[in-house]
Amino acid sequence: MENPVLIEMIRGPLVESRHRGAVAVSDFEGQILFALGDLAAPVFPRSAVKALQALPLIEQGAADRFSLSEEELALACASHSGEAAHVAGVERMLAKAGLKPSDLRCGAHWPIAQAAAAAVARSGAPSPLHNNCSGKHAGFLCVARALGVDHADYWRPEHPVQHLVRSVLEDFTGAALGEVVCAIDGCSVPTWAVPLRNLAHGFAKFGVGRGISAERARAVAQLRQACVNKPWYVAGTGRFCTDVMQLFGDRVFVKTGAEGIYCAALPQQGLGIALKCDDGASRAAQAIMAAVIARVLPLTASERAAIERLASPVMRNWNGFEVGRVQLTDALR
Amino acid sequence: MENPVLIEMIRGPLVESRHRGAVAVSDFEGQILFALGDLAAPVFPRSAVKALQALPLIEQGAADRFSLSEEELALACASHSGEAAHVAGVERMLAKAGLKPSDLRCGAHWPIAQAAAAAVARSGAPSPLHNNCSGKHAGFLCVARALGVDHADYWRPEHPVQHLVRSVLEDFTGAALGEVVCAIDGCSVPTWAVPLRNLAHGFAKFGVGRGISAERARAVAQLRQACVNKPWYVAGTGRFCTDVMQLFGDRVFVKTGAEGIYCAALPQQGLGIALKCDDGASRAAQAIMAAVIARVLPLTASERAAIERLASPVMRNWNGFEVGRVQLTDALR
Repeated sequence: MENPVLIEMIRGPLVESRHRGAVAVSDFEGQILFALGDLAAPVFPRSAVKALQALPLIEQGAADRFSLSEEELALACASHSGEAAHVAGVERMLAKAGLKPSDLRCGAHWPIAQAAAAAVARSGAPSPLHNNCSGKHAGFLCVARALGVDHADYWRPEHPVQHLVRSVLEDFTGAALGEVVCAIDGCSVPTWAVPLRNLAHGFAKFGVGRGISAERARAVAQLRQACVNKPWYVAGTGRFCTDVMQLFGDRVFVKTGAEGIYCAALPQQGLGIALKCDDGASRAAQAIMAAVIARVLPLTASERAAIERLASPVMRNWNGFEVGRVQLTDALR
Repeated sequence: MENPVLIEMIRGPLVESRHRGAVAVSDFEGQILFALGDLAAPVFPRSAVKALQALPLIEQGAADRFSLSEEELALACASHSGEAAHVAGVERMLAKAGLKPSDLRCGAHWPIAQAAAAAVARSGAPSPLHNNCSGKHAGFLCVARALGVDHADYWRPEHPVQHLVRSVLEDFTGAALGEVVCAIDGCSVPTWAVPLRNLAHGFAKFGVGRGISAERARAVAQLRQACVNKPWYVAGTGRFCTDVMQLFGDRVFVKTGAEGIYCAALPQQGLGIALKCDDGASRAAQAIMAAVIARVLPLTASERAAIERLASPVMRNWNGFEVGRVQLTDALR
């Protein structure tokens, strides 16, 4: 099935580039209320399901045992920008569990935030703490400690921590996650491909705590609340997920993943959203997510103006001149 | 017209993302010998035509008058990585013409090369010299000096330098470049949209010096030779354009542009290549270019192995694990 063009990148008088994609909006019973493109093909959710991957942290008692704060729980669900307080938070999580930065197995990369990268360059080189996934990995390590198992291989598919993660993902999405849909993520943990329809259903359940056990619903509520209360720790300065959760508070949970994935939960509407841009472009995926939120969430005039700026941002060049804009196609408007 | 899927990004057992695009291969008389997708829609060539934009530098006598070296001519055609020798070369060009870095109007951005960016961070902040287009802008400034006109507004569409540039582009591509296809580039100079068919024809002419005046053919040969002799100055360490020209010497001239554009000239075959990835992805555009070169250029076994590595690179994660690969679709194989 051919996915429709959802985003056009306008430069001057012409469309310069185009992005196709698919979108699912589901209620917590799995009924699809808005659909564009192919919802049945399995897609790798990558970091968009970090909040589900972090659930064992609460369910296995690690969050309580190590007295993790809301900031630290948000970091466990984060693709953070590697800013100073992100890095300090991850170090704190590790220390609380009696672990060291060298226990992280996510690999090192430069901070996403340019200013943070420049600061790291001035004092040395990036470490695994700066990896955008370091909070998730610190969370996995805390779970391994709470389980009392060897933590060295916490990232491998056969490790008890990843077994728990897979079981959570299956419970929320209703998808069977076997080897035929399993690949390795950028940070080396497994990523299992799931149809957008199932991801949207899973995030509707995540938002309202229905269709899962009462105990799991309480754990989810605690984790979701940590993210929407401390959205800076889920991404960082000027990032889409942070900006949207700062704008809407507990009315929207949203999380990006690599290769053009976004998932969201709208608890008051009982809805979940999952989308993927075919070509993996984040610039298009976030515009699509903003447009879908604008469609399904009741908004004040100022909220509408803010979300529309995210859906159709102006593009400026190195001199700050306006050179074009992101434009939604009719399919999304 | 719908462009075909040309590149699939494989992760583990599945296709994660896909890229559509169009490709034109033309001879110097404008006959299309290989075509995929829409060749008639105007596309912004962006930096892929920098060698054409630099031609007035030779034709107006600036290169001779300011004794520009091959390295400096290559920089005028470059999207350089902002490495130390790139920056030093641009400063030298400006000094030879009695100009200063502050005369550049391209705007500042961090060097493309990570190591160069880290070095800049340690000593300060990026300047317009680090902009990948600074060599092109230094070239424009040299032309303005050679013309004896005020150089302050050399980047504006109405400036004599940009009039010359437009005239060169029209001569090579045979396209009429009016306001209806004119936009502003990332570095603030005009970019005029041209059909891929015309771009490919233009680069065939660029490669063989046919279909243009004898004087222009000599200027083109000098500029092309500078680029293929000094390919590091056209891009930088580990960059596609540099690697391909180092591999093939004067058999291939290749130049990338933003938003998934590539143009190439194969002088011995009398062919020009122009392609665009619909969604603007460089990773796909360079794989497509490598695949097209592999199709039309006679290759030794080791050259074939090298170009196929560029056409279908393995993707590794932050730990160096192989997580997937770039795959050509049947349309390209």
